[in-house]
Amino acid sequence: MNKSLTYKILEKNLLKGRVVEENEISIKVNQTLTQDSTGTMVYLQLESMGIKDIKTDLSVAYIDHNTLQTGFENADDHEFIKSAAAKYGIIFSKPGNGICHQLHLERFGKPTDVLIGSDSHTPTCGGLGMLSIGSGGLDVAVAMAKGYYFLKVPKVLNVELKGKLNPWVSAKDVILFILKKLSVKGGVGYVIEYSGEGIKELSVTDRATITNMGAELGATTSIFPSDEITKDFLVRQGREKDFKYLTADDDAHYDKKIKIDLSDIKPMTAMPHSPDNVFQIKDIKELKVDQVVIGSCTNSSYTDLMKVAKILKGKKVHPDVSLVISPGSSNILGMMADNGALGDLISAGARIIEAACGPCIGMGQAPKTDAVSLRTFNRNFKGRCGTKSADVYLVSPETAAVSAIAGYLTDPSTFGEMPDIKIPQKYDVYDNYFIYPLENREGLEVKMGPNIKPFPVNKALKPNLNGKVLLKTGDNITTDDIMPSNAKLLPYRSNIPELSKYCFGTIVDDFDIRAKENKGGFVIGGENYGQGSSREHAALVPLYLGVKAVIAKSFARIHKSNLINSGIIPFIFKNKDDYYILDEFDEIELVDVIESLDSSTEIKLINRTKNITMELIFQGSKRDIEILKKGGYLNFAKKIND
Amino acid sequence: MNKSLTYKILEKNLLKGRVVEENEISIKVNQTLTQDSTGTMVYLQLESMGIKDIKTDLSVAYIDHNTLQTGFENADDHEFIKSAAAKYGIIFSKPGNGICHQLHLERFGKPTDVLIGSDSHTPTCGGLGMLSIGSGGLDVAVAMAKGYYFLKVPKVLNVELKGKLNPWVSAKDVILFILKKLSVKGGVGYVIEYSGEGIKELSVTDRATITNMGAELGATTSIFPSDEITKDFLVRQGREKDFKYLTADDDAHYDKKIKIDLSDIKPMTAMPHSPDNVFQIKDIKELKVDQVVIGSCTNSSYTDLMKVAKILKGKKVHPDVSLVISPGSSNILGMMADNGALGDLISAGARIIEAACGPCIGMGQAPKTDAVSLRTFNRNFKGRCGTKSADVYLVSPETAAVSAIAGYLTDPSTFGEMPDIKIPQKYDVYDNYFIYPLENREGLEVKMGPNIKPFPVNKALKPNLNGKVLLKTGDNITTDDIMPSNAKLLPYRSNIPELSKYCFGTIVDDFDIRAKENKGGFVIGGENYGQGSSREHAALVPLYLGVKAVIAKSFARIHKSNLINSGIIPFIFKNKDDYYILDEFDEIELVDVIESLDSSTEIKLINRTKNITMELIFQGSKRDIEILKKGGYLNFAKKIND
Repeated sequence: MNKSLTYKILEKNLLKGRVVEENEISIKVNQTLTQDSTGTMVYLQLESMGIKDIKTDLSVAYIDHNTLQTGFENADDHEFIKSAAAKYGIIFSKPGNGICHQLHLERFGKPTDVLIGSDSHTPTCGGLGMLSIGSGGLDVAVAMAKGYYFLKVPKVLNVELKGKLNPWVSAKDVILFILKKLSVKGGVGYVIEYSGEGIKELSVTDRATITNMGAELGATTSIFPSDEITKDFLVRQGREKDFKYLTADDDAHYDKKIKIDLSDIKPMTAMPHSPDNVFQIKDIKELKVDQVVIGSCTNSSYTDLMKVAKILKGKKVHPDVSLVISPGSSNILGMMADNGALGDLISAGARIIEAACGPCIGMGQAPKTDAVSLRTFNRNFKGRCGTKSADVYLVSPETAAVSAIAGYLTDPSTFGEMPDIKIPQKYDVYDNYFIYPLENREGLEVKMGPNIKPFPVNKALKPNLNGKVLLKTGDNITTDDIMPSNAKLLPYRSNIPELSKYCFGTIVDDFDIRAKENKGGFVIGGENYGQGSSREHAALVPLYLGVKAVIAKSFARIHKSNLINSGIIPFIFKNKDDYYILDEFDEIELVDVIESLDSSTEIKLINRTKNITMELIFQGSKRDIEILKKGGYLNFAKKIND
Repeated sequence: MNKSLTYKILEKNLLKGRVVEENEISIKVNQTLTQDSTGTMVYLQLESMGIKDIKTDLSVAYIDHNTLQTGFENADDHEFIKSAAAKYGIIFSKPGNGICHQLHLERFGKPTDVLIGSDSHTPTCGGLGMLSIGSGGLDVAVAMAKGYYFLKVPKVLNVELKGKLNPWVSAKDVILFILKKLSVKGGVGYVIEYSGEGIKELSVTDRATITNMGAELGATTSIFPSDEITKDFLVRQGREKDFKYLTADDDAHYDKKIKIDLSDIKPMTAMPHSPDNVFQIKDIKELKVDQVVIGSCTNSSYTDLMKVAKILKGKKVHPDVSLVISPGSSNILGMMADNGALGDLISAGARIIEAACGPCIGMGQAPKTDAVSLRTFNRNFKGRCGTKSADVYLVSPETAAVSAIAGYLTDPSTFGEMPDIKIPQKYDVYDNYFIYPLENREGLEVKMGPNIKPFPVNKALKPNLNGKVLLKTGDNITTDDIMPSNAKLLPYRSNIPELSKYCFGTIVDDFDIRAKENKGGFVIGGENYGQGSSREHAALVPLYLGVKAVIAKSFARIHKSNLINSGIIPFIFKNKDDYYILDEFDEIELVDVIESLDSSTEIKLINRTKNITMELIFQGSKRDIEILKKGGYLNFAKKIND
């Protein structure tokens, strides 16, 4: 007994290892999801693994990110993913169907199962008791090809909810309240498990808002128990058969516990430019609003948007406000068209845009210079909205709707009677955006447009590595420095050769030329090398350019793991001061690398230019070393027996 | 008697001159419209004219082109236009409200009045008997500031329609049939007037489809009589008071007449890459379709989209087809949401995007590489859809819908019973996207974001012009060569200094530097200089860079007029061979320019570098010369008394 929900699911799906904190284990993956921005790389990786069928119960390829299509690149990516889905037996979700997380919650997520997704907001399905982990694309490719996923057993943080929500306070306010309490680093290393009487206050879509935005706490994932409320949701979605009951044991062991009284929570907002910069709305005075955007995987459920429609019914969007609404799925848009709520939104003067991620990922609807933009989204980093000078405030749908009418950031509890939303007895399902795999998939081939280039694959590690120092960087280099990502470069996510022209572009103009002229080489970094996003491209592009190892004072965790997955060795200096005696274009040699890795001894670096030597250290697991020796995770996964 | 409809309206609105063919006249302008892509320039021009109130009965500033907003520039443009509208008493239509022409038809267009719009598809309102002319932005600015518009009295081409439409044949097929008959040059110099029993077959929105796409015939505009059908439309729109009856006299004089029997027309398509490359659909075999896009100012009326919804009801979009639907206005979207038709479209699996111009002007929804895209739009020029390798076919909404189901280009008449659409007794009006001007506009100021730069204004012409030849071009230079326009540059339509960096970018990299280093100068052109679009920027940017005159073998008509409006003199060589003895960076001087223009004598060019002289000719009206002497149309319009 004394099992947490997390441990119960890990044990149910365990393939290798023991479920003991910090242990590395492998678990069976029941479902995967991808979106199109990371998905092209996932399916290139899958394609390079030479499999015939996927090993998961169900995998879905969604198109929801790059849907504006200002050139052929996006549409070619959609077609490539569609063809890969058809070839390998994956369900394909056409553009226009909606946001992967909302759709997966509605249509596929299953309590007690494991979902791995190539998107950081995959934890959304934690709202219905599914262990849903966002990860790098390569992990998702391997999960489809092999059916497993490796992870360190996480710690578990219990959030016990008690009490009742105040009128006009909703799930978004709850997670903003938690972000204020724990900060954006508060969840790192943990799965966050919710429990307590207070969870009865929250519908599955409310819970999904909270688990979704657990990503902003840095948590591995967040999860609610699967209970009567979960069952009720699945029944209304016509999926009663997918229900399983599961909660933590009453005496479950948790590594950390916090208690929250829901009645303490007031309407909140995360002020610019961090999701944990949270304040009560009533404390913010006279903030004139230029734009209000409602949608995203955090807050675009049927109930969320119906609340907005009820608030706006018979009202008028303030003339100085651009109110933009992007529904979470075609199902929601269809239901709201049929029940008159969409008419109410149009009547108020709202802009209705396609069901997709859209403005949340900077795909359109950038506000004007110096704008104040209220958004029901999950992130308000500077510039993410497409306008560097804009201030983005994260708010609940209720706050968004009320403020759109007032023209000022407004505490919704001042607005009058709270809208009462009836959840439909049966959710409508609009199925014609899905393409289901054929029984007979013989002879189907992937279709690669001219913008889609094969995935770079490394070779087995050599005993000695030599070459030039191509670049020496300072401390705190981010993945944005290593591989910039912006609206101009997003269409090239599936084109590593094109992206390589911009590698380290914030530091030097000619890194790709240096690499090509010297047939690859080494990069020297300072402290915290590779901080920032989990972007695999920051490892894949250096791999493509022939980088053999990065030698730094220290590494950011996720980028280090991406380097290992790409077969690029992340070394640290044994003596940090050696950083200062290595210079760009020094000719260096690393000798007996394989032997040193195997025997866990220091690696010798000989600087042929300066005729000096130094020692390097590799910090990682046995499995990491095996991956490096094979030349990366793809080669490793291809060769091991399951 | 024997008056055409066109002449009747011109005479009703006449201010100066006589309505005799080829005469230059000025007419009173009742209404203007602008869209945002040309509108920023219009309102910069208006702002530079220093007026307090507009002189038209009604002017509307629509936002419908640059609505994707991938950076702050679009939103800043919207805000600028909104503030200018508020300052000058202009109705503002917020983004999301829909397409200018559809909205103007529904809400403001008035039979027998004159509309001038800064968009080539302004003739749409010809569908309800309004004389609706698309023109350069400067003409629209002057129309608002002064209330008049100058034009040469056009010739009139009568198209007499008889007979009845076959089942599944609609207005789009009619105009495609006419395009096949007359070609894209067939309407040049004419107003096209429709008459005959056949017009009773066509609703106002059908007629608007035909007058809209008259732009593709090169016509000045197209117009239908205002009759019982017009009255019925206005009554249903709640605008009976706007109705006036007007037809041509039975014995009207026309410069040219053609007769068309509607029953001869079958479902048609304009094949790539010209709107007059028209064929019957039944003659095109087995054309697999990748994308179908329904919308645009040509075919997004309530009736058009209801037909599409009825065809798709209970059906499924073919898995290999991306069906995109963009309604013409918020009114149409709202009505279709409320009557269940939108639900039918979603149920079939259609992508619903914002009510705007969108894909028709290349704003998103670019299809994949080598795609076949069926579009209910008006233009299928190569690359206009955003994908150079794509083939775009122009079709009717019926053909589009039926083909989206089949996955192949399909003659709709093979589909079964034709949908019967009931026009609503009363069209719904969604008014909250409009901002109406305040009674008291005292102290209101325009708001210019950092991307909006003042409009360049020329100075009065000097007697002698001297400087260097900055560039010498070949024949058939287009406005795209002079001032490129693409998705990257579109956000800078209100930023002449930024655009100037790309001036003549297809020919030389450094034109802007040449111009700045030499403090302006001259451009030498070959035959047909300035062909292509009517883009004013191709004159405004050279003005900004100090170009004093363009000396060419011959000019394209509209660009020549834009040069004059900017105060840049378009000279032709008296002896064409002199073209060959002028070289880049020759130092030249034009002497006694004003005196020569006034006396209609040749202008003497002295080449100081080569020590030779030659003679130039100016071909234009007295009014053109006055405009040039004042330094352009803005200065001219500011100074003359009305």
